[in-house]
Amino acid sequence: MQDPRPQLHRRLEEILASDEIRSLDLIDLLGRHRPEDVAAVMAGFPPPERDRILAHLGPEETGVVLEEADDATRLGMLDVLRPETLARALDEMGPDEGADIIELLPERDAAQVLARVEDDQAAAIRRLQAFDPDTAGGQMTTEFVRLGEQHTAREAIGAIQGAVDAEMVNSLYVVDADGVLKGVVSLRDLITAPPERPVRDFMSRDVVFCSTGMDQEEVARLADRYNVAAIPVVDDHHRLQGVITHDDILDVVQEEAEEDLLRLAGTAPTSPTREPVLRQAGKRLPWLLTTMAGGVVLSLILDRNEAMIHRQVEIAFFMPFLAGMGGNVGLQTSTTLVRAMATGELGTTRLSRVVAGQVGVGALIGTICGAVAALAATAMDVPRGIGLVVGIAMVSGVTTATFLASVLPLALRRAGADPALAAGPLLTTINDITTLTIYFSIAGALLQDG
Amino acid sequence: MQDPRPQLHRRLEEILASDEIRSLDLIDLLGRHRPEDVAAVMAGFPPPERDRILAHLGPEETGVVLEEADDATRLGMLDVLRPETLARALDEMGPDEGADIIELLPERDAAQVLARVEDDQAAAIRRLQAFDPDTAGGQMTTEFVRLGEQHTAREAIGAIQGAVDAEMVNSLYVVDADGVLKGVVSLRDLITAPPERPVRDFMSRDVVFCSTGMDQEEVARLADRYNVAAIPVVDDHHRLQGVITHDDILDVVQEEAEEDLLRLAGTAPTSPTREPVLRQAGKRLPWLLTTMAGGVVLSLILDRNEAMIHRQVEIAFFMPFLAGMGGNVGLQTSTTLVRAMATGELGTTRLSRVVAGQVGVGALIGTICGAVAALAATAMDVPRGIGLVVGIAMVSGVTTATFLASVLPLALRRAGADPALAAGPLLTTINDITTLTIYFSIAGALLQDG
Repeated sequence: MQDPRPQLHRRLEEILASDEIRSLDLIDLLGRHRPEDVAAVMAGFPPPERDRILAHLGPEETGVVLEEADDATRLGMLDVLRPETLARALDEMGPDEGADIIELLPERDAAQVLARVEDDQAAAIRRLQAFDPDTAGGQMTTEFVRLGEQHTAREAIGAIQGAVDAEMVNSLYVVDADGVLKGVVSLRDLITAPPERPVRDFMSRDVVFCSTGMDQEEVARLADRYNVAAIPVVDDHHRLQGVITHDDILDVVQEEAEEDLLRLAGTAPTSPTREPVLRQAGKRLPWLLTTMAGGVVLSLILDRNEAMIHRQVEIAFFMPFLAGMGGNVGLQTSTTLVRAMATGELGTTRLSRVVAGQVGVGALIGTICGAVAALAATAMDVPRGIGLVVGIAMVSGVTTATFLASVLPLALRRAGADPALAAGPLLTTINDITTLTIYFSIAGALLQDG
Repeated sequence: MQDPRPQLHRRLEEILASDEIRSLDLIDLLGRHRPEDVAAVMAGFPPPERDRILAHLGPEETGVVLEEADDATRLGMLDVLRPETLARALDEMGPDEGADIIELLPERDAAQVLARVEDDQAAAIRRLQAFDPDTAGGQMTTEFVRLGEQHTAREAIGAIQGAVDAEMVNSLYVVDADGVLKGVVSLRDLITAPPERPVRDFMSRDVVFCSTGMDQEEVARLADRYNVAAIPVVDDHHRLQGVITHDDILDVVQEEAEEDLLRLAGTAPTSPTREPVLRQAGKRLPWLLTTMAGGVVLSLILDRNEAMIHRQVEIAFFMPFLAGMGGNVGLQTSTTLVRAMATGELGTTRLSRVVAGQVGVGALIGTICGAVAALAATAMDVPRGIGLVVGIAMVSGVTTATFLASVLPLALRRAGADPALAAGPLLTTINDITTLTIYFSIAGALLQDG
């Protein structure tokens, strides 16, 4: 399938650039494209042109464009949409996506818009707003078909035929008279079952489910582990509250992967094409504070060892080499562990064994790198003792770096924080300081009389 | 839902540890758990115990355990399964998963096993083996329901009722007499349509599809963009060849996110709990070669500037600070761009504008860091000129680092390579060398008479 977006973007530019009002052309062009693609190209147009595009979309398309646009573009569109237009779009959206949109509005605007939304939908949105957006409750939709245990296959099919708004009808969840989740049937089970048979007789009782408060990352892991396209969400009394569908699960996986990656690189999410330079720099600077503070500390450590460096200036030659290796091996270690935690691999293994294993790997790598460093130093014709110091410092520095890089993420996780926070610049900074401290201690001990 | 795996692991240990043969207990325990969970705990048992567990699973469960186990465990199980047992398991698997398993066997074993698999399934597996595993062709299943345009809703439902093996019956793809993809209907459309109406009258002609050769990452991006649970795969003549389902899409997204993360950290995928220390170290060492080579180059650069450092040893104090900032800001920049490429954000933007924007961000951050560094240097009471040199070097070093960090991934992508390769240790090494070279040039120019 060819990417339709570049052409859509070009045609929109042409139509919007012309002096005449070409509403029919615009409606025709937008009608021939998916609203997801319209959402994607929206970002490339300045606000007044976005308004003209929005004015030519129906409420359903407006809803999809709002759902699918990136954050900055979405906020821009919300600024200009009239409350009536927005309310009509919200009527057409899933209540979960609707709640996400309402969340973005200032409180007064939100109330104004919700007052104009259809009663059922407004009530559903208000209920969803009670949940933390990063939990199953915040991600679930409440538009789904709920079957009673006693319903026959024929009645169940009738219920689906009547449920025009339901997002997800491929897995149908079965509840008892109290709304407690009892089982699941697939639409295919329904059409192959004898019409008069009650669903309780052929439903599967073994349902993969989650509770409203479960972290969204955990939900995505469940879906991945059991290869299900949707997961029902229950409250504390096991009553069915909603369903999380495959598209939300995919979004969560993408979002969490992005979060890990950016934390590792020590930055907040920024958009290189849609945010002004000043805001991009502002978002990155706080993350650089540890590196800056670490840099100052490193300078102070060197300042304190001034006399030694002055006596044997060759000591300074190998500082960046040592810091670089410690940083990189540490980053490898912590990233491997953060991934293993994300995939659940560490689940049942004793943590001391994990740390011991990683330190073993580090010691082995450190020994090899130490030999390389000592050889390089010797080849460079620096004073005899320095090669030895560099080699020993490399072995101990790299080994210590792997130790810190495995203990830190595990400790953060135990403290309930995100282990990925320990994998990025914070770790590199700590490792830089540790490695150079080790280096100068060894140099001080072995080269006293240098 | 409680995680059933820790308890399953404990109960299995108990049963396997007892001296008596407790086959019935084992069959009962395994029957009360999902095979996906059995797959997950398999890794925790040594090979002889795994064999005993496998011996008590049916062919379908064996298939799921093989599909869901991690790579190392899967290879271990393939080593011990008899060809007959493996063939029965393959009969029960999707042909796409079957092809993945056959791919892992030595050629002679593969032929032996395939000869014992049911003819249809063996033929389907052989057809799939022709495709690159990282493409749509390599990921698709061939077990799906194919409807003819002229079929009525009633006939279509009959076809689904008869297709016991089909993986995916929620979206049904419609083809013409030549097998060319013409449209899609949902199972819900079918049950709400008048029974005698031909599907051609109510199918949607606007299908999100991909070609057999499309890269799997691109396929996942399509599914994400259009929120579809499955994507049909066509050949060069637009004939329907297979379907990629939501679980495969989720796996691809996970795999690609992991790849980006590990490349950024400069390591190959390794398992901290399942691989011996030696193999883990061996997998990481090749990635450290650039850092090691870079370290040697850095030492040589410093060696060449020996005289200057000797004259003013304070110059050495700020080297790690400069290198650290250049490295971190570079990592932020390249990671942001790699993500933007992965999500398609850079799609329509001119690349020179992207680079210019990033250099702007870098210059701004560099100026602030330069001021901090100059202040720190001044506060440390080092000779007057050094604060100025450090400040200027920080501004130019950080700005250059963002330039390299934006140009390198873009250049790699243009050359057809993975841009993430340029985001990790390679970039940090290049930035270390550049930053220190700039530093010494500025120091040389301004402190000649120091």
